[in-house]
Amino acid sequence: MKLQITQENLSKALNSVARVASSRGTLPILANILIKTVDNRVCIAATNLNIAITHYIGSKVSEEGAITVPAKLMQDFVSSLSGGVIDIMLEENKLHIKTDSFNSIINGIPADEYPVMPHIQNGKTWIVPSNIFRKSLSQIVIAASSDETRPVLTGVYLHADNGNLYGVATDSYRLAEKKIIKLDEEVSLLIPASAINDLLRLIDDSDQPVEVTHDDQQVLFKYGDVELVTRLIDGTYPDYRKLIPSSFACSATLTKSELQNIVKVSSLFARESAGSVTLNVDESDKQISIQSIASQLGENTAKATAKVVGNGLITLNSRYILDALNVIHDSDVSVNFNGKLEPCVVRGTKDDYIHIVMPLKS
Amino acid sequence: MKLQITQENLSKALNSVARVASSRGTLPILANILIKTVDNRVCIAATNLNIAITHYIGSKVSEEGAITVPAKLMQDFVSSLSGGVIDIMLEENKLHIKTDSFNSIINGIPADEYPVMPHIQNGKTWIVPSNIFRKSLSQIVIAASSDETRPVLTGVYLHADNGNLYGVATDSYRLAEKKIIKLDEEVSLLIPASAINDLLRLIDDSDQPVEVTHDDQQVLFKYGDVELVTRLIDGTYPDYRKLIPSSFACSATLTKSELQNIVKVSSLFARESAGSVTLNVDESDKQISIQSIASQLGENTAKATAKVVGNGLITLNSRYILDALNVIHDSDVSVNFNGKLEPCVVRGTKDDYIHIVMPLKS
Repeated sequence: MKLQITQENLSKALNSVARVASSRGTLPILANILIKTVDNRVCIAATNLNIAITHYIGSKVSEEGAITVPAKLMQDFVSSLSGGVIDIMLEENKLHIKTDSFNSIINGIPADEYPVMPHIQNGKTWIVPSNIFRKSLSQIVIAASSDETRPVLTGVYLHADNGNLYGVATDSYRLAEKKIIKLDEEVSLLIPASAINDLLRLIDDSDQPVEVTHDDQQVLFKYGDVELVTRLIDGTYPDYRKLIPSSFACSATLTKSELQNIVKVSSLFARESAGSVTLNVDESDKQISIQSIASQLGENTAKATAKVVGNGLITLNSRYILDALNVIHDSDVSVNFNGKLEPCVVRGTKDDYIHIVMPLKS
Repeated sequence: MKLQITQENLSKALNSVARVASSRGTLPILANILIKTVDNRVCIAATNLNIAITHYIGSKVSEEGAITVPAKLMQDFVSSLSGGVIDIMLEENKLHIKTDSFNSIINGIPADEYPVMPHIQNGKTWIVPSNIFRKSLSQIVIAASSDETRPVLTGVYLHADNGNLYGVATDSYRLAEKKIIKLDEEVSLLIPASAINDLLRLIDDSDQPVEVTHDDQQVLFKYGDVELVTRLIDGTYPDYRKLIPSSFACSATLTKSELQNIVKVSSLFARESAGSVTLNVDESDKQISIQSIASQLGENTAKATAKVVGNGLITLNSRYILDALNVIHDSDVSVNFNGKLEPCVVRGTKDDYIHIVMPLKS
C-alpha cells in the first residue's frame, strides 16, 4: 500500500469510525481500524461486531493494500498533525506515515485477520433528509432503556403506519414518539439505541438524503461517504399506542423556558426523593405550581402563569420532564394529564412529537 | 435575620466560597456556608479548617442575624434563579427565600456551631497587582507536588530576595520559579498549593491590588470584597537555587507553538514509556528533533527548525514539557541543557519565568 491523502480527510474519517473500535473486548484486533485501498479511494472502517462504520475518502493511490492499526493512536496522531498532504506507505505490517515535520511508524495487524464487514444483499431502500432524521432521532432516543434484561426496550422502533414513518422509544417509565416523514413503505425496524447514537454523530443538519436499506437482520444507513450497518434487535415491540391518552382533563400551556426554569429549581429540592416533584394546575388562578420537599434540606414551591384547563395534580420525576423539554424545540409547551395515576403528556404546541411520563406515587 | 439582596451579588458570593465547604469531612456543619449580617452588609463564608474564604456583599438588612445552610443546595438554588431582588428571612433555623416565582425553605444549623473564622492580628502587609499575581501564581503552582508525605513540596514558596519577590514550586521532578514584583519586605511564606489554586479562582486580570497580610502561622489575601485565609506549611524550603544551571552547552530557540506541536505528537508514542521522549539538538542541521518509541505500537520522529547552539541529547517527560509550555506566554521559547544527566531549563525569551525539568534515564 502506498498513497497520499490530506490530513483533513483522513482525520475526518478517523473521527467517524474510531469510536466503534474498542480495546475493552476480548479480540485485540477490534481495537484497530481497517485501512484499505479501493480503486482511487481509501476505506477507513471499524466494527465492534454489532455495529460497523465505513468512511470512504478520496486519495492518490499508487499501490493497493490493506492493514489494521490501533484506532486510538492513529486518530490522536492524525488529528494532531497540521493540515496538508500525508504520505502513507505499508512495509511488512508497519505503516509508515510521513509529513514535513513527522516520520512515524505504526505497527499493524494484517487486514485478513479483521472481521468481515457486514453488508446487505437484497434489501429494501428508502430515503429521509438528514436534518429531519437527525432532529427526530435525537428527540426519540433519550427515552430508550439501558437495561439489557429487556432487550426490546433498548431499541428505537421505526415503523410505517398509514403512509407515515414513526419513531418511538420507551423505557417503560417514559415514552417518546415522533412522526418523522410521509412514507409509503412497509417498515418495522427495531434498532439498538447505541447504533442510533452513533448515527447521530455521523449525520448533520443538511437536507442531503440519508439512504436507509434493510432486510430482516440488519439495517444500513448511508450518508455521503459514510456507511453505518447495525444488526436489528429480535423481538416484538409493545403495542405502545394504547398508552397514549386521547383526551385530557387537565392541561397547562406556557413558555418552554419558564417551565424548564421552575422544574430545574424544583429538582434541586427533589434530590432526596429521587427527583419526585408534584405539579398542580389551577384553572381559576391561571397558574401551574410545582412543589418539591427534601425532608432534610428544606422545601420549595415554584409557580408560573399558564393557560390552564381543569384542576388537578400529578407527581412526576423532574429529570424526565427536563429531558423531554430539552429536546422540544417549540417556544410554547403543554403539560396534559387525566389524574394522578395516569400518564402525563408533555409536548410542544407545534411539533409532531409527544413525550409521555408515567406518574410516581405521591 | 431579614434582608434583601440581589441574585447577582448573592450568586457571585456563593460561587466564591461554596467550593471550600465539603460534605466529605467528619463534621457535617463543614458542608454548610455561613450567612451573617454585618451592619448593612452580608458576609458569606466557608472554611474547611485549613482555608477560609469570606465574601462581603451589600444588602438591605432590616434585621440582624446569622445561620449556616447546605452550601451545594444554596449555591445551585441561587444560581438557577433569574436576576433581581431576593427576600431572605430567618425563622427558627429555617431560611425562607422568596422571589416572584419561588418560595423556598432551606433548613439551617445555628451559626454558633460553626467554626470561628481565623484572622490575623498583627501581621505585615504588602500589595501586588491582581493581574501580575494571577499570572505568576498560575505559572508556578503547576510544579507543586501532590504527595502529602513531603509536605514542604506541596507548597508554593513566596520569598523576597535582593529587593524582589520570587515564587517557586517543585515536586523534585520539575521546578518553576518566577520573579513576581520588586518588593522591599522580609517575606518567607510556604503556602499550600491548594490555597493558591483557590486564590486563583478569586482574583482576576484587573490591575487592582491584592493585599497580602501574614504572620508566622497564617496568610490573608484580600481582594475587593473577598478574603482568603490559609495556614502556612511548617518547614524549611529546599535551597533550590543551586539546582538552576547558570550556563548551558546546548540550547535551541524556536516558536512556542511549533515546539508544543512536536512534543504533543511525540507524546502519543510515549504512552508505554511513561511519557519519555528524547530531544536532540543539532547545530549544523539547525534543528531540534524529538524521538519517541512505543515498542508495541510504533515509533515517531518529529523535527522543527530552530536557532541552535551546541549538539546534544536529553530524555525528558513529555508531559512536563507540555505543562511548562502551557504557562509560558512568550511566542518564542528556548530549551537549554548541559548533558543528559543534568537539569533542562525551558523558558520564554522575554518572561522572568524559568521551568526546570529533570532528565529521565535514557
